[in-house]
Formats: sequence, structure tokens, C-alpha cells
Amino acid sequence: MNLIVQKFGGTSVENPETLKIVAQKIIDCKSKGNEVVVVVSAMGSSTDELINLANELSDTPSPREMDMLLSAGERITMSLLAMHLNNLGYESFSLTGSQAGITTTSRHGMAEIENISGERVKEGINEGKIVIVAGFQGVNKETKEITTLGRGGSDATAVALAAALGAEKCEIYTDVEGVFTADPRIVTKAKLIEEITYDEMLEMASSGARVLMARSVEFGRRYNVPIIVKPTFSEGSGTIVKDKVMEQAIVSGVTHNDKEIKFTLFGVPDQPGIAGKVFGPLSENGVIVDMIVQNVSKESKTDISFTAPLEQKSEVENILEKLSTELEAEGADSDPNIARVSLIGAGMKAESGIASKMFSILGENKINIAMISTSPIRISCVVNKDDMQKAIDSLHKEFIEA
Amino acid sequence: MNLIVQKFGGTSVENPETLKIVAQKIIDCKSKGNEVVVVVSAMGSSTDELINLANELSDTPSPREMDMLLSAGERITMSLLAMHLNNLGYESFSLTGSQAGITTTSRHGMAEIENISGERVKEGINEGKIVIVAGFQGVNKETKEITTLGRGGSDATAVALAAALGAEKCEIYTDVEGVFTADPRIVTKAKLIEEITYDEMLEMASSGARVLMARSVEFGRRYNVPIIVKPTFSEGSGTIVKDKVMEQAIVSGVTHNDKEIKFTLFGVPDQPGIAGKVFGPLSENGVIVDMIVQNVSKESKTDISFTAPLEQKSEVENILEKLSTELEAEGADSDPNIARVSLIGAGMKAESGIASKMFSILGENKINIAMISTSPIRISCVVNKDDMQKAIDSLHKEFIEA
Repeated sequence: MNLIVQKFGGTSVENPETLKIVAQKIIDCKSKGNEVVVVVSAMGSSTDELINLANELSDTPSPREMDMLLSAGERITMSLLAMHLNNLGYESFSLTGSQAGITTTSRHGMAEIENISGERVKEGINEGKIVIVAGFQGVNKETKEITTLGRGGSDATAVALAAALGAEKCEIYTDVEGVFTADPRIVTKAKLIEEITYDEMLEMASSGARVLMARSVEFGRRYNVPIIVKPTFSEGSGTIVKDKVMEQAIVSGVTHNDKEIKFTLFGVPDQPGIAGKVFGPLSENGVIVDMIVQNVSKESKTDISFTAPLEQKSEVENILEKLSTELEAEGADSDPNIARVSLIGAGMKAESGIASKMFSILGENKINIAMISTSPIRISCVVNKDDMQKAIDSLHKEFIEA
Repeated sequence: MNLIVQKFGGTSVENPETLKIVAQKIIDCKSKGNEVVVVVSAMGSSTDELINLANELSDTPSPREMDMLLSAGERITMSLLAMHLNNLGYESFSLTGSQAGITTTSRHGMAEIENISGERVKEGINEGKIVIVAGFQGVNKETKEITTLGRGGSDATAVALAAALGAEKCEIYTDVEGVFTADPRIVTKAKLIEEITYDEMLEMASSGARVLMARSVEFGRRYNVPIIVKPTFSEGSGTIVKDKVMEQAIVSGVTHNDKEIKFTLFGVPDQPGIAGKVFGPLSENGVIVDMIVQNVSKESKTDISFTAPLEQKSEVENILEKLSTELEAEGADSDPNIARVSLIGAGMKAESGIASKMFSILGENKINIAMISTSPIRISCVVNKDDMQKAIDSLHKEFIEA
């Protein structure tokens, strides 16, 4: 008998009506002879409502209490879903992260899963029951404190649980049809991707595709758990994320990220160890630096540029101001008017000339490239935000539609 | 240093504004040099909202899942309150029932507290922190299942916690000024009771006073923890419930209960063991039988009357229909148009003639008495519901105002 882990996110469990649709998806899976373990998020916007309450009562809510607060959300979803399944004649019960044996690091709000014992989950499976597990939350083994996993946490719970239980696959249900060759809201001709490798999905997630977070894909790759991204509200078969795909496209997708800002430190003395002096303090302060470009040195001075999330603007500016003085640089600057456009494709490894073709297409469209960064299966260009749509359209047309 | 347990119920923690008032009450207590442990309920009507959601998704929600669902409520209150206290500069943290070491029986929805280890509560106290504990909930030691305590559960948590921690007293904050000689909404001249014994408070709670549940008073009596019922939204000193009071009134209060229904089994063969045959099946089916009156036997047949909560009407009727046939009785009848009016007073024990005076007053007011029941410190009369107001007014006037 096959075990399948199904995960349903906020919009799928938004209200009693959508919970009934979710229950039917679960029952369909169970009726095909599978054992089913379900991971759920908090209902719809309930997490945001709790955060708003917290902000009304505290300027800087303690992360420990914030986790206590937010972990109430999944309890509500999971118990309601279990009741409903029971009502439909399917034996079911719910478990908190702690009860499911999900132990994490102690970093509140951004904890990492360390281990999943899953004893009570396994007991439930052996009794033929549908076990519902709270996503997003766990417990620190030493301190017994409740933790939450941060953004994409429920997906991570689902994939890690699938790995721990030796599940055949992990189905991530969402309000879209699956993973597309580009964001369908931006590119009308974007196509659903049927199969994609973990590596490609990781690059897509890291370069702007929001349907699946990188951390859950990493779990899938590490333990070789196939992840299927599927729609809750239709019958589509979705996108399978796995180790190898049958037909490897050269370019699988075009992604974009317009939520970043570009920073530049000008005229930094070009000495060994200078990059560490710049990026050390940024990393220590939790800044998530993305692309980094260092210009060729002129007169023993160089310019260092990098991108970081828009919401970290003021933190980065403060750090750069200090660094500029310390390192005797010529100044610092920031540009929020940028977008990153990336081509992703495992087939690139075996195919030369993709990068130069990309640069040509952008050039033909009179799009200036501000920064370039590559991996074996990705090429990213930072362009002016006003050129983003044209860049995506032209790249999608040449590499995917052609 | 004195330790005080403070409990704040649903209306006291209804929204961020009332939570700020609650925080001030806590800080006032702490600033007087006390250690404070706080017990909270779910916010305002949030429990009812969760119950409504459950009813939308299940005809008969599993009690185990219902407890999982409802226990989310206190988490939200306690973490918000802890954050707010932190924000005001008072170190505070929150603990679930399970984290506070509150172990209970396994009966979901109606669990009884078995033990409170309170280790993490004591640690917090020793560190000078304000510890917030979830009321109403606990965990079963053997099965590790989350339980809830049912109606009045948060009060029970507070008093039991005060007992376990050896607290000086337990303050129960509420939206009224304290315990009154009668319901102030019914009797305009009702007076606040300054001091009352556990025994009297138990009788008052059991005979209609809703401000404090009997189970928490029982804890207070058993462990001799003074309970103070106080207002959240004013500076009143409230009512102290304790072992002995300075000046023992003959009659401390007049209570009423108009949420009961009277049932009668007519012409039951008057044999030994007949009462057991009637009340055994009722008790097994969870019917909370209150007053019982058995008429004098005529021609070896007797009538048995009793009262039970209005909401159990249909269950009781079903059981009585069966019993009537089994016991060869002459029929069963129910009367919802009744009210119970009671006099409570520990002074009655030393004073004779209170009962006959009560009956006379009711008679003078042309109020017919349908049933009578007494304890050493209580006399209850069941009257027609239409006569309730007159009965309470006249008794309050003669025994309390006089």
C-alpha cells in the first residue's frame, strides 16, 4: 500500500466550503487504496489577522510569543478538517507539530526541522486512519518551546514528513495549476511544466517563482521524494518535481524577481579579503544577499554591487554607510528600479551559447544589462524594471515558445 | 514575597483595548511587590465562533478534535498578553496547559484536573517573570492528548494553580463587581457581598448564581485558597470567598434558576429500589438531575418529580417514555414553566424557622410552591416561572434588606 503526503495551504483551507473540497481530494486519494497523511496551514488570512493583533499590542513582539500565537492557526484548520472527515465516515485525527514529533532548531520564527520521529503519525497510518498534521510548526527538543518555520514552512513540513515516513510522494496543493514556464500573470503564453528536476526547481524558486519555496525542494532532493504541485480547485495533474525527467528541455522556464534592490559600493580598495569585509557584516545582520558582481579593478580600486530584498533597504543602507567609511570607499548607492530576469534549464549544461543568445535577444530589444550572474543551469540578468516585461516576453518567445 | 494568581475571562480579554486594561491590573499587582501568575480564557466570543465552524463541518464533532480546536483560543490570548507586558517593560511569557504541567482525566470536553506540576511556572516566578497560563485546558498524562475542562474551566485552572503553587489568594476578574445578594439585573436593591464562605458560595453557584462555578469553589475549599471575585473594569474590591467570615448573615443571598424543566413520573409502583431504577438510566445518559421530590405513596403508587436543565429536555423525555412502560407507571409529564428560588445562608444552621418564614412570605404573595428541597444552608422552592420575580423581590426584601 502506498503512502502519500498531501499538503493544503492557506487559500485551500480558507473557509468551511473550501475545507469540504479539500476533504474530497483526501477521500479520492484514500479511495484509490492509498494511505494518506495530510499537512495543513492556517486558514486563509488568519495568520495576518493574528500578526495585526500582535502589532496592536507590542512594538517588537517576542519571537517566542509570536510562535505561540501563530501556532494556534494550524490547530484550528487541522481539527476542523479531521472532524469533517470523521463526519463523512473516514476515521481521522489531528496532531500538532509537537505531537507528530517534529523537532526543530530553537530559532523562533525561522526554525529549521532537525528530525521527525512521526510515531503517532505511523500509529494512525497502521490503524488505517487519515492523519492530519499541523504544518509550519514544531518543538525544540531541549527547551520544549513551540517554534515556527517561517515562510514556506508548511511545504517544508510536508516534504520532510514524506521523507521521514518513506512516502511515495508529496502532493502540494495550491490555488494555481502547477509550475509554469513563466508567471502566467505576466506571460499569457506561459505553459504548465509537466516535469522538472529538483535542481531546476531550486533555481526557479530562488530566482522568483513563488509557487514552491526552495527549502521544501531541498528536502525533496536530499531524500529523493517526488513533489507534485497540484491545483486544489480543479482536476489538473500539476507539475512533478523529481530527480530526473524524461525529456530535458534546454530552457525550462523564465523567472523574474522585481522585489529586489541593487546596492553598489564605489571605489573600494581592491585588497585580498575585501569581499569578506563587505559581506560578513551584511550576513551577520541577516541580510539575504543575492547576486554579487565585482568590477574589474582600476587603479587598485573596484566597485562591488549586489542585490538584496527590497524590505531590507534601510538595514543595508545603514551597514553600507558604516562600511564605506571603514573601508575608505568612495561612497555607496542604491537603485530600487531593477528587476532580475532568469533563464533556468538543466539542458543548458550540455548546450553552449545559451548565455550569448540571451544577451543578444536582450540587446536586440534595446534592454541594457546591469548585472549578470550564472550557475550551471541558470543565467540571470538584472535589467531596468521598466524593461522587465519586454525581457520576459522576448526570452519566453525565443527559448520556450519557439 | 506573596504570590497571587489572577484570572481574566472572555469579556476581560475580548480585544486589544481590554487586554491593555488587563495588563494594567497585572502590573498594579506586581508593582505592589507581589509575584503574579495569570490565567486567561479565550478572547470574547472566539470560542463560540470556533464552535460554529465545527458545526458547519460536522454533525457530531469528535470531542478529541473539539478540544484540539478550542484549545487554540487561550493560546492567542496568552501570547498577546505576554507580548504586551514585555512591551511595557515587564518580563513575561506564556505557557499552554500542557507546558504548565496541568494533567487531567481523559474525558474530552469535560476533563477534571488531576495534578498540576507547574515546574515551568515556578521557574518563571523564581526569575521574577509574570507567567501567563492557558485556562480551560490540560493534557492527559497517559495518552498525551489535549483536553478541555468544560464550563467554568478557566476558573478551575486558576484556583487549582493557586493551590498547587501555594498562592496567597486567587483573584477571579470578571465583568461584574462581585457576588451579589441576588442577581442585580433582577433585584435593583441587590447588594454586593463582601465576604462569603465556600459552603455558601457552593450553594449559590449550584442554585443559579453564575458569577463563579461550583467546581472552582470546591478547589478553593479543599485547599483553603481564598478566592476574590473582582471587577476588571472598575476599582471595586469585590467579594472574598473563604473558610470563615467575620459576620455571618443568616441569609446571605437569594438565587434563582429559570433554565430548568420539571419532569414527573405518575403512578410509579412504590417498591424498594424504584428511585434507582428511575435515576440510574438518567445519570448514565449524562442528565444532570437537580431537585428530586417523591410524593407520599397512595395505594402503593407514588409520583416522582425532578428538575433537569432545559437543554436536556428531549433526552429526558425519551428516557422517561421508556421508563414509564418498563416500570408500569401511569405516565410522564414535563413542565418548562418553572423557576427555582433559593435562600442561602450559613447562619441558617443556627437559626430555626427560616424555612417556615420563607413559605409564609411566598404564601402571603399568593405564590404556589411546586417543590421544596433543603440543605443545612439552603432552602429551594420551585414556583411558577411567572411568579419568579415576585418571589425573589419579596424574599430579598424580608431576609436581606430588612
